[in-house]
Amino acid sequence: MKFIDKLLKAQRKNQSLVCVGLDTDQSKLPRHLGQSKNAVLNFNRHIIEATSDLACAYKLNLAFYEALGERGWHILKETLACVPGYVVTIGDGKRGDIGNTAERYAAALYDGLGFDAVTVNPYMGYDAVEPFIRSDQHCAFILVLTSNEGSNDFQRLTIAGRPLYERIIQATLKWNVKDNIGLVVGATHPNELQPIRQLANSMPILIPGIGKQGGDLESAVRFGCDKNGRLAIINASRSILYASSGKDFASAARTETLQLRDQIQKVRDRFF
Amino acid sequence: MKFIDKLLKAQRKNQSLVCVGLDTDQSKLPRHLGQSKNAVLNFNRHIIEATSDLACAYKLNLAFYEALGERGWHILKETLACVPGYVVTIGDGKRGDIGNTAERYAAALYDGLGFDAVTVNPYMGYDAVEPFIRSDQHCAFILVLTSNEGSNDFQRLTIAGRPLYERIIQATLKWNVKDNIGLVVGATHPNELQPIRQLANSMPILIPGIGKQGGDLESAVRFGCDKNGRLAIINASRSILYASSGKDFASAARTETLQLRDQIQKVRDRFF
Repeated sequence: MKFIDKLLKAQRKNQSLVCVGLDTDQSKLPRHLGQSKNAVLNFNRHIIEATSDLACAYKLNLAFYEALGERGWHILKETLACVPGYVVTIGDGKRGDIGNTAERYAAALYDGLGFDAVTVNPYMGYDAVEPFIRSDQHCAFILVLTSNEGSNDFQRLTIAGRPLYERIIQATLKWNVKDNIGLVVGATHPNELQPIRQLANSMPILIPGIGKQGGDLESAVRFGCDKNGRLAIINASRSILYASSGKDFASAARTETLQLRDQIQKVRDRFF
Repeated sequence: MKFIDKLLKAQRKNQSLVCVGLDTDQSKLPRHLGQSKNAVLNFNRHIIEATSDLACAYKLNLAFYEALGERGWHILKETLACVPGYVVTIGDGKRGDIGNTAERYAAALYDGLGFDAVTVNPYMGYDAVEPFIRSDQHCAFILVLTSNEGSNDFQRLTIAGRPLYERIIQATLKWNVKDNIGLVVGATHPNELQPIRQLANSMPILIPGIGKQGGDLESAVRFGCDKNGRLAIINASRSILYASSGKDFASAARTETLQLRDQIQKVRDRFF
C-alpha cells in the first residue's frame, strides 16, 4: 500500500491525527518498572497497547535509542513490533548525507528496522533525500520549519524576498513525483502553517511542538490539515509518556491521548 | 587535552593531514575475510594497524555501522578501541536535532562511544549544535559546503548578496567560544576553500571528497590549511579501504595512505 493511503486509512480508522512520540527517556520511567534497558521496551509496549486505537502514528526518536548503546537497536525493533500493522511508524533521526551514505541510512531504517517513514534534513540537497523516497510505500518528512528556538537562526533567512524554508518546500514539490514526501513544521510557528499548507498541497505535515514546547494546537489542526481536515500529524511526546509517573502510567497516557484526540476532533468539526 | 591541541599534536607527530574514512562496506570486504559482521571489525582493525602512524584522524561514517543492525554499535566501539589514543576520532553522523534530543546524540557519541569529535548539520540552529560543544575536549564539525552534487541545491542560495553557507560560518564563529568548532567543506569546491579559510581563522576544516568523488587535492591542502600549513583534515575513504581486494588489502591501504600523505606534504612544502 502507498504510504499516503496507509496514513489516510489510519487517520480514518482511529479517527485521529495524533502521533505518539516515543522519545522514551530511561531516567524518567515510572519507578516500579526499574531502570534497566528492558524497562524501556516494557514501558513502550504498555504505552502502545494503551494508545494504539487512538493514534494514527508513532514517531520514534532515534537519539533516545542510540543513547541506550548496543541494546538500543534491539529495543527499537521490538518496540516497532508492538505497533499494529495499520498504524504508521516514523523513524525520527533527521538523517541527511551524500547519496551512497544516505542509501545505508535508508536500508537501516526501512529494511533493517521496518519503519514506514523517516525524517530527513534537507541541507545537503536532493541526493541526500532521494534514497528515502525510492518507494511510494515509504515517506520522507523533510525538515522545513522546526519547533525549536534555533529554527530562527537559518530557516527564515531571506532569499529573493522569501524565507529559506519556502525554497525548500518548493524543491520538495518537484521531488515529490511518487507522492511520498511530507514536511516537518513546528506547532510553535502558527502563523506560517497556513501559507505552508497552501504551498504543500496534499503533502502530509508532521507537526511537533505542542505540549511541553508550547505550540498552538488549534492552529496546528486548522492550518496543518488539508482541505478535508486530514494529513496533519500532530505529535505529542512527553505530555503523553509522562502523564503519570506511577503504576497508572499507561492508563494516564491513554487519557491524555484521548483528550488530545478529542481536542483535535473539536477543531476539525469546527473548521472542516 | 583540548581537542584542537590533540589534533595539532597528531598532525605533527604523524606528519600527516590524512584522515582515513572508515566507511566500511560489508559487501566490499576482501573475499578471504568472509562476509560476517565480525569481518567488518577484523577489516577495520587491519586497516588501522596499517595506517595509524600515517594519519591524524579516523572518521567513522555511522550509516555504515547502523546498516549492520544490532551488532553495529559493538563494532563501532571495538573499532574505536583499535585507534591509538593520540589520533583523533570523528563520528560522522551529521546529527542535528532540538536541544534535548541533541543532548542524547552527544551522550551516545561522546560518552557512550568515546568519539573526540562529530559532524553536525546546522539547519536547526544553535540549540542543535550546543550540546556537541560543551567541552573543549570535543569538537563539532559543522556542515558548510558539502562534497555532493546536492550541495548546490540550497547551500549556495544568496542571502543579502552572500551565500547561505557563509552565513552559517559567521554564526559558527560566534558560537566558537571554546575553540572547538570545525567546518566541513568538500574538496569538490576548490574555489570556495580559500575565502572559507579566510573567514574560518584557526578552525579545523574537515575536507572530504578527494579520490572517488573527484575533489582537488592541491587546493584542499593549499587553501584548506591555516597559515602554518595545519588544521586541514583531508579525508579519503574508498581509495584507501579498497586499494586492494586481495589478501594484501592492509599493505595496499598503507601504500595508498603513504602516497596521499606524501602528496599532501609536497603541497605543504611548496606553500607553507
